[in-house]
Amino acid sequence: MIARFRFEKLHTDPTGARRGRLFTPHGSVETPVFMPVGTAATVKAMAPEEVRTTGAEIILANTYHLFLRPGHETVARLGGLHTFMNWNGPILTDSGGYQVFSLSALRKISEEGVAFRSHIDGSARFLSPEIAVGVQESLGADIVMQLDECPPHPADRAYLARSMELSLRWAARCKAARSSDEDGRALFGIMQGGMERDLRQASASGLIEIGFDGYALGGLSVGEPKELMAEVLSYAPALLPEDRPRYLMGVGKPEDLVMAVGCGVDMFDCVLPTRNARNGQLFTRQGAMNVKSARFREESGPPDPECGCHTCRHYSLAYLHHLYRCREILGHRLMTMHNLHYYQDLMAEMRQAIAEDRFALFRQQFVAKRTEGLLCP
Amino acid sequence: MIARFRFEKLHTDPTGARRGRLFTPHGSVETPVFMPVGTAATVKAMAPEEVRTTGAEIILANTYHLFLRPGHETVARLGGLHTFMNWNGPILTDSGGYQVFSLSALRKISEEGVAFRSHIDGSARFLSPEIAVGVQESLGADIVMQLDECPPHPADRAYLARSMELSLRWAARCKAARSSDEDGRALFGIMQGGMERDLRQASASGLIEIGFDGYALGGLSVGEPKELMAEVLSYAPALLPEDRPRYLMGVGKPEDLVMAVGCGVDMFDCVLPTRNARNGQLFTRQGAMNVKSARFREESGPPDPECGCHTCRHYSLAYLHHLYRCREILGHRLMTMHNLHYYQDLMAEMRQAIAEDRFALFRQQFVAKRTEGLLCP
Repeated sequence: MIARFRFEKLHTDPTGARRGRLFTPHGSVETPVFMPVGTAATVKAMAPEEVRTTGAEIILANTYHLFLRPGHETVARLGGLHTFMNWNGPILTDSGGYQVFSLSALRKISEEGVAFRSHIDGSARFLSPEIAVGVQESLGADIVMQLDECPPHPADRAYLARSMELSLRWAARCKAARSSDEDGRALFGIMQGGMERDLRQASASGLIEIGFDGYALGGLSVGEPKELMAEVLSYAPALLPEDRPRYLMGVGKPEDLVMAVGCGVDMFDCVLPTRNARNGQLFTRQGAMNVKSARFREESGPPDPECGCHTCRHYSLAYLHHLYRCREILGHRLMTMHNLHYYQDLMAEMRQAIAEDRFALFRQQFVAKRTEGLLCP
Repeated sequence: MIARFRFEKLHTDPTGARRGRLFTPHGSVETPVFMPVGTAATVKAMAPEEVRTTGAEIILANTYHLFLRPGHETVARLGGLHTFMNWNGPILTDSGGYQVFSLSALRKISEEGVAFRSHIDGSARFLSPEIAVGVQESLGADIVMQLDECPPHPADRAYLARSMELSLRWAARCKAARSSDEDGRALFGIMQGGMERDLRQASASGLIEIGFDGYALGGLSVGEPKELMAEVLSYAPALLPEDRPRYLMGVGKPEDLVMAVGCGVDMFDCVLPTRNARNGQLFTRQGAMNVKSARFREESGPPDPECGCHTCRHYSLAYLHHLYRCREILGHRLMTMHNLHYYQDLMAEMRQAIAEDRFALFRQQFVAKRTEGLLCP
């Protein structure tokens, strides 16, 4: 018998930060949670067992990329994404919409869906709410995301309103397209509405009326100033049901995660720890630093003396600096390993702080420590 | 007290194939041995603990690369190469000569040494026998190689003779430059002489007169036809002392290793298993195959069903094919892991066959199996 998706809220801190647990067909997940991004069925530079050792319990895979290559039918014939990539934990797949809008060429959006050309070979493709759900089911996702349109910032209010309404109609079609919920998978709706409070309100109400297993906050971290994101996060999570997980898509920096958890967000994903590692940026308890800097040439210490990751236990900044300069794969690996470990440690510390009703203090100390030890202002 | 380098010959098979053991300051090594190449203080795409799990007991590092970047003084200040790269087993360093001749620009060779420009930044550099030994000692090598000149093929006899004589004079200077043998390190001489038997003979006699802990066969696999290499290997190893290890530099393909072991060679290094992995080529018991081939698109089996490596136990050819097409780092990792494992398995099988006096049969079956199952003719 397949375990059905559910969310258990374990505790709420005085700040509103929530401690919870997701149950999925491939195991449970402690929240608040950060999901490493496994774009093309691999968390870049990492082996799945390494991702696991960083503390990650769930990963995200990109429907757009897998739809194009190797194709969801191929993945399905090979036993699904879990078998294909050798990750036996839960997987959330996005709907593909975000990459259609950011990567593909010649896209044309209609009521029916979105026509676009592949950024790989230029071939004509089409994604509709029904296709997006079908593709994610073929991949074997534990958490399926509705197809939505994610407008950039700035965008005019009339466009934001029309786009949000379209995303709501697509949300309803995604719900209808789910062949059965006997497979235990979750379907999440995505709130849109840009930085407009009434549109966010309308989006939330519409989604709740349709009814989803979880709700995402879309359309943030799309180019808006940090204060604007903070403003939306000050009210938007509370528009969503208390008893369902809230997922802030594509966010973000460590300080963004701390801020959003304090606003009642439960789930995150972002390419920052993996992508920035490949560009030489390391996240540490003292702030971010870049391994390229010449001052690390003969630094025999680890990136973060307080970190227990494999990289910090066995390698010096001087060696990472050398590997980066030589463009060696091991450099990408060791730095990705550290960054993912740092993100998972941060989430674990937040979960602990929430459980002990001291999230406000945690947040304060987090900011103070980084300001003091700031390596890259 | 530091363990001194020595070689113990355990058994000789009727073919002349030798089973032995090297003792070094960083542990012992079973021979015949294949040494993965760790060019810039990393076996490309691998973590050192992974290199170890393939069965490798010793690795090679390139003096030329480390001399230029990060510099041997830097490595020495950081505790030496073993600490720097987190490999606690034996390391053999080449002398840098081969890369000076193959990679650098504007090189000018004289009795004193070789002046060249760095292929990285164009800076003027100089390598002499004394400097080559000093750099390798600074790096902390367990086995130090003499500086030699490695002529290409074809080269005229007069040039080969002059070059071989120069390499002999450099050999004597390298021996004299060794500050002490109290550090337990070995110094190996390198036989040259191209494809000319009398020059090989003169080179061997000259080296033996100077006296080394081990002897390398240089100047092979430099563009000559396979039959010519086989001809040289049919007589050259026997020109070297019975009781010292014989190292065939920069060789080679699996079939070359089998052939050379039968000629009494004990040590090998080559970039093939690592470099070709990054180009999609996998070595298997059935021959070589390329993961790029479209026929692997939905192949759910592993590269080599008889292989026990991590890659073959957990991943399909279809997944490797996908990773290769997406240029994902994990693809390079998994394929490198397999190839190194294959090479180490091959060496272990040869060691076993020699110990049981059945190397001739092993060699025959090795060839037959590959001819039968040949995937890429």
